[in-house]
Amino acid sequence: MPISEFDIIARYFAARPARRPDVALGIGDDAAVLRVPPGCELVLAVDTLVSGVHFPEDTPPEDIGYKALAVNLSDLAAMGAEPAWLSLALTLPEPDEAWLAGFAAGLFELADAHGMALVGGDTTRGPLSVSVQVAGLVPAGGALRRAGARPGDLVCVTGTLGDAALGLQVAQGRLDRGVEDNDFLRKRLDRPTPRVAAGQALRERAHAGIDISDGLGADLGHLLEAGGVGARLDLSRLPLSPAFERYRAGLADPDAALSLALGGGDDYELCLSLSPEVFEALPALDVALTRVGVIEERPGLRCVDGAGRECTAVPGGYRHFAG
Amino acid sequence: MPISEFDIIARYFAARPARRPDVALGIGDDAAVLRVPPGCELVLAVDTLVSGVHFPEDTPPEDIGYKALAVNLSDLAAMGAEPAWLSLALTLPEPDEAWLAGFAAGLFELADAHGMALVGGDTTRGPLSVSVQVAGLVPAGGALRRAGARPGDLVCVTGTLGDAALGLQVAQGRLDRGVEDNDFLRKRLDRPTPRVAAGQALRERAHAGIDISDGLGADLGHLLEAGGVGARLDLSRLPLSPAFERYRAGLADPDAALSLALGGGDDYELCLSLSPEVFEALPALDVALTRVGVIEERPGLRCVDGAGRECTAVPGGYRHFAG
Repeated sequence: MPISEFDIIARYFAARPARRPDVALGIGDDAAVLRVPPGCELVLAVDTLVSGVHFPEDTPPEDIGYKALAVNLSDLAAMGAEPAWLSLALTLPEPDEAWLAGFAAGLFELADAHGMALVGGDTTRGPLSVSVQVAGLVPAGGALRRAGARPGDLVCVTGTLGDAALGLQVAQGRLDRGVEDNDFLRKRLDRPTPRVAAGQALRERAHAGIDISDGLGADLGHLLEAGGVGARLDLSRLPLSPAFERYRAGLADPDAALSLALGGGDDYELCLSLSPEVFEALPALDVALTRVGVIEERPGLRCVDGAGRECTAVPGGYRHFAG
Repeated sequence: MPISEFDIIARYFAARPARRPDVALGIGDDAAVLRVPPGCELVLAVDTLVSGVHFPEDTPPEDIGYKALAVNLSDLAAMGAEPAWLSLALTLPEPDEAWLAGFAAGLFELADAHGMALVGGDTTRGPLSVSVQVAGLVPAGGALRRAGARPGDLVCVTGTLGDAALGLQVAQGRLDRGVEDNDFLRKRLDRPTPRVAAGQALRERAHAGIDISDGLGADLGHLLEAGGVGARLDLSRLPLSPAFERYRAGLADPDAALSLALGGGDDYELCLSLSPEVFEALPALDVALTRVGVIEERPGLRCVDGAGRECTAVPGGYRHFAG
């Protein structure tokens, strides 16, 4: 007899009791009941991963569970919020216990690392799809927004760019960089690190922030639009991983790789706008923060090379329904 | 050129500004920022509808939008919560503007009726699926739970049962009850009325409550299990609509219809446990509340007919992965 929906919930998800004192009522009722501390605002985000669209169909269930939460934590990170609770809407073609055990292991690995409680969800039958909703907390009025960048601010990004775009090529069998680099790149695709601590540390220091899910070009574009400003981006400053640099060095035209660093999706790094003074006086972060450009009054995004020459084309980001 | 994800959000969803003063930041950033009033707790629920599983594939988009929110509001109603915010994870095979316009019209019709603000979401490409997350508010400590039913309590249900199960047969072309009854039954399937006001009115009066999404038999079973009690259900008291009664009267064995009223899904009525004294002194509600049984100490659900004879079989509720 196949496992029932109720058994799925009981065995893989509800068996992990919520240990946060702010969970008045967790899984097992019609809805969860939660306590937002006085002086805090609630931050809510939701993101869906569809098999074959957001992850290759052969992605291990552990990585799907991990990534489904990671992409949402990245949104909380971009607001500078402290993660608190999550709920899960899981659609499965059929209940597969090995798959579910792996999925739950990946999901809870990341949830536990951030002290989050799973407080609800819905399991349904259908094509594989995972929708995670996360809730976080910020001091009232303190959330980091997309709007607020000021001319003269530095444009900074966490971590490195373009690895996940290469990882996708590896996953699709279109690129082979040897075992070590293949593993690194694939992990950057399947197990992105949401910059939660950096987002919280920069919340009160940055003027604006966004997470980079569709490529720096596209997401910085949203930040500029929200702020009514423009930016000059120095392509020679884009932070690249050693694996990416090795890939790039082997190309006939190394600059062609920059379109991946600028336009590739799934990086889940943060892009921030902060004053040069604040940038110089930053506390230690758990991830590198690299200045890649400067905010300007004139709207639009301009790219320059290391010699300051303006580039003609700015590679765009990934659009799900792009024409 | 097909419409992009960003245009979808802008045109059909973000164009409707959130008008609630408790929305500090709505659609258009990495996450929404919301204010929970002092003295209130947050109530969160999520439910997914998958095409071909939770609604027939030819369901009009208006009805899909309406129902995706309605099934979630039913969860808030079961907690006695006041609806506040919603977010939407929409997965579409392709951007179809006529479909989106219809979907948004149905969704906002119900959201507006309850004063809710859409505060975020995610649109992705894939097999048609709609996941809605709702957030509501209750006075701290005041949520109505599944647990709490007491021996001697009356088991009561709102509205009528079994209509949606007949509506599904109509939608599948397996039943034809004439234009008027067909329309009524199909509407009960496609446009269930979440009992939000009744849930709030009964929150402080009932000992326990649950919404009926998988059939009274199954959902009352959850309520009994949560409370560590049992119940005796009088099948002659099940509230049935005139359309259902007409269908039943035409059957060779009218009692066969009761399995639909007891085991059919998608009713989205409330099932409540409340003391006889409270039941007698209830204020006027916007929906009928019918006593259908009594809570007993002995665990398990026992059904009796109008003459008090115990029935041998209790039809079970719908299980998504039932064996």
